[in-house]
Amino acid sequence: MRWIRFHDDGAVRTAILEGSTVRPVRGDMFSDYEIEDRCLDLADVRLDVPVFPRTFYAAGFNYQAHAASAGLASPDRPAPKEANIGYRATNALIAHEEPIIVPPDATDKVNYEGEIVVVIGRKAKNLDRDNALSAVFGYTIGNDVSERTWQKTDSTFWRAKNTDTFKPMGPWIETDVVLDDLETVVRLNGEEQIRFATNDMIFGIVDYLVRMTRYLTLYPGDVVWMGTEGTSPNLLDGDVVEIEISGIGTLRNPVVRQAG
Amino acid sequence: MRWIRFHDDGAVRTAILEGSTVRPVRGDMFSDYEIEDRCLDLADVRLDVPVFPRTFYAAGFNYQAHAASAGLASPDRPAPKEANIGYRATNALIAHEEPIIVPPDATDKVNYEGEIVVVIGRKAKNLDRDNALSAVFGYTIGNDVSERTWQKTDSTFWRAKNTDTFKPMGPWIETDVVLDDLETVVRLNGEEQIRFATNDMIFGIVDYLVRMTRYLTLYPGDVVWMGTEGTSPNLLDGDVVEIEISGIGTLRNPVVRQAG
Repeated sequence: MRWIRFHDDGAVRTAILEGSTVRPVRGDMFSDYEIEDRCLDLADVRLDVPVFPRTFYAAGFNYQAHAASAGLASPDRPAPKEANIGYRATNALIAHEEPIIVPPDATDKVNYEGEIVVVIGRKAKNLDRDNALSAVFGYTIGNDVSERTWQKTDSTFWRAKNTDTFKPMGPWIETDVVLDDLETVVRLNGEEQIRFATNDMIFGIVDYLVRMTRYLTLYPGDVVWMGTEGTSPNLLDGDVVEIEISGIGTLRNPVVRQAG
Repeated sequence: MRWIRFHDDGAVRTAILEGSTVRPVRGDMFSDYEIEDRCLDLADVRLDVPVFPRTFYAAGFNYQAHAASAGLASPDRPAPKEANIGYRATNALIAHEEPIIVPPDATDKVNYEGEIVVVIGRKAKNLDRDNALSAVFGYTIGNDVSERTWQKTDSTFWRAKNTDTFKPMGPWIETDVVLDDLETVVRLNGEEQIRFATNDMIFGIVDYLVRMTRYLTLYPGDVVWMGTEGTSPNLLDGDVVEIEISGIGTLRNPVVRQAG
């Protein structure tokens, strides 16, 4: 089943997506809802992010080649030994097709990171390996846009990864997914840049959820971005980034570089 | 004016606090509200956190003695040169009087950090030094409880600072504050530990808000914790931490160490 959120007469509404048919619901995708009578066409609606998270979690280096490349791992900063989660900020979220706006003082080193996003469906603490995935509602796609100079020089990732518009997420949530079957493909201006097995992570989704919930409570709508593989060329004004995950969909966003 | 949120027949409600009189309102403290007819006594209500933030910002080292002490600043990790903000997570928030619960595998090095908390009142981007404080709704108090071993060894602060219950905030929001008049006093089991001028920060509230909103949009209800001064003894089971900021109030929380 696919869930979207869309702009409807000044409000943001939730709907089930069946093929290209949008069926708005009343209520909450995580608990009780009623399907309305009306139907819309996907081509006629403007999507919002498919969920607005209460807490926005993100794994760091979680694929071998990404951790080893681009100077991200080094003797001072080795690849992780444990599934330690990090955070991103909701101000930076934008929907499918909305522009990534790069501030005028950013350096050229602005990169994409194509990621699978876990959407939490229920309140959960102390999950174990057997029941961890029962806390998952579904999956969507994220682009963890990063300004690498700020990422290295600032004491936190606040502006490197959380500048407004740096977190495209969508287009929708897919609830029926076989993780081991998924493949992530990133395209820049239509040209394939990388293709990798989405679930081939250093620490898997179960590893993260078990470790996180030993210390913290997850809530419906929380999202966990699972990290990316490989490296990205520097994004230029007018570029279009597409992140496709087979069985989920394609997240597409143009890049706009603000004049100085 | 003081604002509280309190538990009322299974829901969380907003109210104005006048002396010890609680006057519930209908609506939103940041926009339109109506005062209800009924009055309650503060002693009869159970407080919740005074705001549930959309994004939970926190400054790091922002007072001279704290940055220099406790091994937090070092040649590898100098005091900040710019007002770079960080993040905390909402799962960890608890209200005035609720217990800080320390997990069984935490080390002895669990510390308090008494902080003033800025509550944002309106959507804001690109604030300047003249209008930055116009985005502030009021101020409350936070205790940035920290497990120092995890803080040093984990790649992020996820569990050192964001374990459930590690972020007491309250008891209320005070909207009428003269920042330069404020003094922070931290007491442990009734005994004064430190007293400092609340506004004597390395980077002030205006510095942070101006720099943050160059890159990100603030929203009503966002909170910015401004850092702490000095060091803390290790917190023991049964301890009670009180953080008083003159003109705002006192945030008090007991410490419970979970058995292993």
